[in-house]
Amino acid sequence: MSRVTGQVRVVGAGLLGSSIGLALRAKGVDVILHDSSKATLTLAVDYGAGRRTESGDAPALIVVAVPPDETADVVADELESWPSALVTDVASVKAGILADLNRRGADTARYLGSHPMAGRERGGPISARADLFLGRPWVICAHDGNTPDQQRLIEDLALDVGAVTVEMAPDEHDRSVALVSHVPQLVSSLLARQLSGASDKAVGLAGQGLRDTTRIASSSPDLWVQILAANAPAVTEALRSYRADLDEVIGALENQEAAGSRRTVAEAIARGNDGVARIPGKHGEAKRFSTIVVMVVDTPGELARLLTEIGELGVNMEDLRLEHSPGAQFGLAEIAVLPEAEKKLVVELEARGWKIAGEQA
Amino acid sequence: MSRVTGQVRVVGAGLLGSSIGLALRAKGVDVILHDSSKATLTLAVDYGAGRRTESGDAPALIVVAVPPDETADVVADELESWPSALVTDVASVKAGILADLNRRGADTARYLGSHPMAGRERGGPISARADLFLGRPWVICAHDGNTPDQQRLIEDLALDVGAVTVEMAPDEHDRSVALVSHVPQLVSSLLARQLSGASDKAVGLAGQGLRDTTRIASSSPDLWVQILAANAPAVTEALRSYRADLDEVIGALENQEAAGSRRTVAEAIARGNDGVARIPGKHGEAKRFSTIVVMVVDTPGELARLLTEIGELGVNMEDLRLEHSPGAQFGLAEIAVLPEAEKKLVVELEARGWKIAGEQA
Repeated sequence: MSRVTGQVRVVGAGLLGSSIGLALRAKGVDVILHDSSKATLTLAVDYGAGRRTESGDAPALIVVAVPPDETADVVADELESWPSALVTDVASVKAGILADLNRRGADTARYLGSHPMAGRERGGPISARADLFLGRPWVICAHDGNTPDQQRLIEDLALDVGAVTVEMAPDEHDRSVALVSHVPQLVSSLLARQLSGASDKAVGLAGQGLRDTTRIASSSPDLWVQILAANAPAVTEALRSYRADLDEVIGALENQEAAGSRRTVAEAIARGNDGVARIPGKHGEAKRFSTIVVMVVDTPGELARLLTEIGELGVNMEDLRLEHSPGAQFGLAEIAVLPEAEKKLVVELEARGWKIAGEQA
Repeated sequence: MSRVTGQVRVVGAGLLGSSIGLALRAKGVDVILHDSSKATLTLAVDYGAGRRTESGDAPALIVVAVPPDETADVVADELESWPSALVTDVASVKAGILADLNRRGADTARYLGSHPMAGRERGGPISARADLFLGRPWVICAHDGNTPDQQRLIEDLALDVGAVTVEMAPDEHDRSVALVSHVPQLVSSLLARQLSGASDKAVGLAGQGLRDTTRIASSSPDLWVQILAANAPAVTEALRSYRADLDEVIGALENQEAAGSRRTVAEAIARGNDGVARIPGKHGEAKRFSTIVVMVVDTPGELARLLTEIGELGVNMEDLRLEHSPGAQFGLAEIAVLPEAEKKLVVELEARGWKIAGEQA
């Protein structure tokens, strides 16, 4: 049933470790759990994420799922304690951990780092889910000292828990996540921070744009300070590029009479258009959708009725976003559909009495 | 039927002007439309947003709805042409226009600026909607030279089109929109711009966080360069504060051995938590909801079925967000409900066979 054969030892029974345990156990894998906290380990075992260590255990694969700050320490210990096992980890930063292990003289020929991009839910084994990794990217960061067999074993692990594998060198991974995850987190947090001193009236004018740009600003400081510190070189490199662009725009706005200042601002927005167009949409496709905005009265069942009718029309909804108007007893449902379905959908929905508040090709 | 009495002249028959025309006409108001483009005017009149000027017209209220760059010019012309009318505008920046009018010696005692916060849809009279302003904030920016009667007239206009009125001084308005709209736009555009040079593999790791923070980066450069230029003082002030915080974080990440560097990063994230908590949610309330994440197979009708069942359980959904996993044939529906409804909903949905991928208090 499983691709992975033999015992798998999971060190760290938090959200990620316990979820890996649950997913592997569902495939019939013998999962050995360990956690420095007795209480966490007991809870995870009770939860069915794995069993406690027994004498005679001989895991072929060890997954270290502890906080980023502790990862290198724990990986080094595991490499030493289990001299024939392959050790991987799930920390969100990769090059620093490998460098740290090499500095200590650890047997990194048996270390192959990885990074499953999942886990926004609250932490702890109680939040663990066997399907946490389903369809999520699992980045596999082999280094020069690894073998194809080792890489295949980590791929098997990722596939067993339902993830989609992505191969990257450790440095490439760190630069990539700096760009798509760590810098966005900081940019969003710093933007939200500016609201601290604002009047209630001012924040009352907030629209969907501000809500979207600051949503991830509610993330945990404890976790993020570890992630950002561990990936500081890649994050600062990307932040410096961001700051250079910011400086350029501030300069242009401060000196509006200067030749080319409007062009500088216009190009910053236009290059942003180009950048956002590169983000893949649903199912990894970079396809463009048409959006129609439908008014939905804010009573239970209304949105369901709308979606049922869209389903009856045979139109597949590619994305859905709800927008609430402050003070209004209704919302706007932004529905993304394939461009060829847009016209028909608008006509049919209007015929059924829905109010279309906008269309966007 | 309408609060506004007498004729209303709308100058500029684009999305905003035509939508105001449609909304007022629906209330029985006599709307006189004007546009510098004959074609646009004809289209807007055909569309029912108002009628052409006739000799003998004597509008009591004039609404200038032209691009920000042209607003002061057009307001000055209208004040001169209609010496007994009150003139307002709908530009997204207010202090600069008033200052500009004063510099020219315009009769600003009859000018009272306003700013309806609506209109994300594509432009032109063809996109106009009578319900564009329904439930949206309409900021009314009286200055020292205005009378209570004048303010009441603009309030009547806003209420007639279904908006929610907010009073602010012009400077206060400009600082507020810099913070909640203009700076978020630039921050998002500059973040998205960093993706231009990224590899396909890197952008392939993009999650919902990057999608949210960069969504508004697809906005129009033409419009935004005008808005940002017109509000340059307030925008640069807010951007400088943002840059100072950014510098602090870059400095801390560059010098991780320095005392307090981790604290600096942690506090940036924590202050972002505080800031985002200040943004009012649905219906203007700053209420906190519980979120449950449900897996939805990606076939037409599945999401509708989920929402129908939630409706059958009598639970009101406060917000809904869809998340797609790259490569996966299903999505995650994040459903916000009142905290007291969470437990019941999870139990009932699981009993009906839905997979709950997470909960968040």
